[in-house]
Amino acid sequence: MTALQRIQAAKDASYSLASVSTASKNEALKLIAELLVARSAEILVANSIDLEQAVKSNLATGLQDRLRLSDARIKSLADSINDVIALPDPIGEIVQAKTLENGLDLTQIRVPFGVIGVIYEARPNVTIDISALAIKSGNAVVLRGGTAAENTNIALAKVLKEALASSSLSPELVQTVDDFGRQGANEMMAARGLIDVLIPRGSASLINAVVEGSKVPVIQTGDGVTHVFIDESANPDWAVEIVFNSKVQRPATCNALETLLVHESVASTILPKVLDRLVAAGVTIHADQKVNSIYPDSVLATEADWHAEYYTLDLAVKVVASLDEAIDHIKKYSTHHTESIITSDEAHAERFLAEIDSAVVMVNASTRFTDGGQFGFGTEVGISTQKLHARGPMGLRELTSTKWLARGAGQTRA
Amino acid sequence: MTALQRIQAAKDASYSLASVSTASKNEALKLIAELLVARSAEILVANSIDLEQAVKSNLATGLQDRLRLSDARIKSLADSINDVIALPDPIGEIVQAKTLENGLDLTQIRVPFGVIGVIYEARPNVTIDISALAIKSGNAVVLRGGTAAENTNIALAKVLKEALASSSLSPELVQTVDDFGRQGANEMMAARGLIDVLIPRGSASLINAVVEGSKVPVIQTGDGVTHVFIDESANPDWAVEIVFNSKVQRPATCNALETLLVHESVASTILPKVLDRLVAAGVTIHADQKVNSIYPDSVLATEADWHAEYYTLDLAVKVVASLDEAIDHIKKYSTHHTESIITSDEAHAERFLAEIDSAVVMVNASTRFTDGGQFGFGTEVGISTQKLHARGPMGLRELTSTKWLARGAGQTRA
Repeated sequence: MTALQRIQAAKDASYSLASVSTASKNEALKLIAELLVARSAEILVANSIDLEQAVKSNLATGLQDRLRLSDARIKSLADSINDVIALPDPIGEIVQAKTLENGLDLTQIRVPFGVIGVIYEARPNVTIDISALAIKSGNAVVLRGGTAAENTNIALAKVLKEALASSSLSPELVQTVDDFGRQGANEMMAARGLIDVLIPRGSASLINAVVEGSKVPVIQTGDGVTHVFIDESANPDWAVEIVFNSKVQRPATCNALETLLVHESVASTILPKVLDRLVAAGVTIHADQKVNSIYPDSVLATEADWHAEYYTLDLAVKVVASLDEAIDHIKKYSTHHTESIITSDEAHAERFLAEIDSAVVMVNASTRFTDGGQFGFGTEVGISTQKLHARGPMGLRELTSTKWLARGAGQTRA
Repeated sequence: MTALQRIQAAKDASYSLASVSTASKNEALKLIAELLVARSAEILVANSIDLEQAVKSNLATGLQDRLRLSDARIKSLADSINDVIALPDPIGEIVQAKTLENGLDLTQIRVPFGVIGVIYEARPNVTIDISALAIKSGNAVVLRGGTAAENTNIALAKVLKEALASSSLSPELVQTVDDFGRQGANEMMAARGLIDVLIPRGSASLINAVVEGSKVPVIQTGDGVTHVFIDESANPDWAVEIVFNSKVQRPATCNALETLLVHESVASTILPKVLDRLVAAGVTIHADQKVNSIYPDSVLATEADWHAEYYTLDLAVKVVASLDEAIDHIKKYSTHHTESIITSDEAHAERFLAEIDSAVVMVNASTRFTDGGQFGFGTEVGISTQKLHARGPMGLRELTSTKWLARGAGQTRA
């Protein structure tokens, strides 16, 4: 089959899934979770081939770690499928209902998109996570993982299809186009009318390439140049703890802190304590001139640092003269993911909440809270940084559309 | 100013609008409505220049009619602004709120997109309608109307900017790029990060060009190859009235009927009555072989007829052997706008509602009901035929996004 034929097969299969019961979907998910564990050995053999190749091609060690599976990690993938089984099914939910004066009965219900496309990098967990979320939300899925995980993904897709074949659902619901290389991704981006929504997951350059190249509607996720602003009235202890938690708890995530702004009136008092705590944990401080003069244990920042999503123990730090200057800096450099102000001034807090144009705007809290699990969605489809359709942490509901049902008895328009 | 500078000016102005009171927005809208009427003479002079040019260039008479303004039409534009004033303001609406166990307070509120771009054809009413809806929903707007309405749109934009200048809002909230011709539209489609959402309004070819060319997220509207299926158990009187109303009441709209499917068991009984009524109203029947043999007062349909959005008193008609064949035909040719079944069989009705993948799916009702006004949204931004963000008739709320506000007291993630 060509890549386009596989995409078409996903579309054809998607129709049958739209009206399948929650029980049938959960049963299929349970079979997938069980087969994953039963086939661990086979999956790990495939994974070891990818890992060998990764070492040979000098793939960054962080990416090697993402690529690596183990019995424990496969078990944890199966557990996450069981978490998805436990989530409520969004399909069929009544969004709104009304009866018009002429008696026409209108009901807006939640329906699947149809086919979700996912283009991602060397993260085999996405293959399983997204497939489970897609099936639970009534969607077929077309996957294009990175070549670095090609053998692992083939083994995982085989498990997905085998488990589906033994369930009441169609094995055609999960399709991969990895074996077509870049052409597979291009076919997906051109498949308007077959793929209903495309979700890129990975680096900023991957996401930009999909946003620029796709004719299918895209949901842009991740990509977090996240800011914390320490205002002049900030509680010093909160400043130390929130900045530390935002930067250090898990630096390789999109909600980790990348740029710290500090009001000049507290730069010499609060800032050294904040930075001491970070440096003790191994963080490199990329400082503007003022920060560097106050805190010499830092390197001078360049323009690139204000744009940087480090994903590492690095932090850009800048002194600003006012709340206005902080807001202006964020407007210029933010990727509209998460920003937080540390302040005791309620008026400043409310201005920050109103004027910062990001998916999540915080007062006196760690940026690490921007997360589907933390928000109580029970899962993590991704964090949307765009304004259309979904903004912020995305749950199962964000993988659905709606349609209007109109039930009449011969009504015509006057 | 270049086109890009105007788009940037709209973006800059949009920040100030995000936290403006409903009263201030309504006051500005009232000033626009008043100035429109006060400047009627000037607007009509500009319009007459466009109309002269339209005659010279043989613009289709339907488009000439859409282009033509009059005192009465300007009055009606002002009235529609007053309707928008009366609508509830969606901005600031709380979508959901929760407090996490750690005390972090989460509120998801409705916020403006920021900047809405509209690319449309020779319809000066869109200039006013969309600007009013954008302002009420807290958005700046960048307009690119067709060259056929260039002088009219310049006059209307002048009124919009003058009225805004005399209000508490910024005149920069409304920008036009008409004077840059095609380049203006291209700049809009490339303005990712400045324009938040692009809405094309007009012909299928205009909409496709924007969908294919835009790097800004698009909401696809209109484009209705709309179907009615007369099932074997259809009430004959309902069939006659619903088909007549769907086709004839206002054929130049996207919710008008374009293809009629009829079950073979009632083709010789119900169909002639249905078609007689249409032909008497001047409708041309484009018939498949079977329909043509039953009803000779018809022309033979070609493949193009099943794809046609006529917008005129033309109707494609086809006999099908079953509900399944009707559903398959619709799957193949529908633009996912509106489809209706006429049936007395509840199981067939429910199958049609479940399996047809369109924005609005009806039982025993006229397709003409797919309309923001009819649905009680009080206005008509357009009818979305895509699945992302909005589906079906779009009200003010569909011109908004959301953001999460998180209010804490030093919370960090464990």
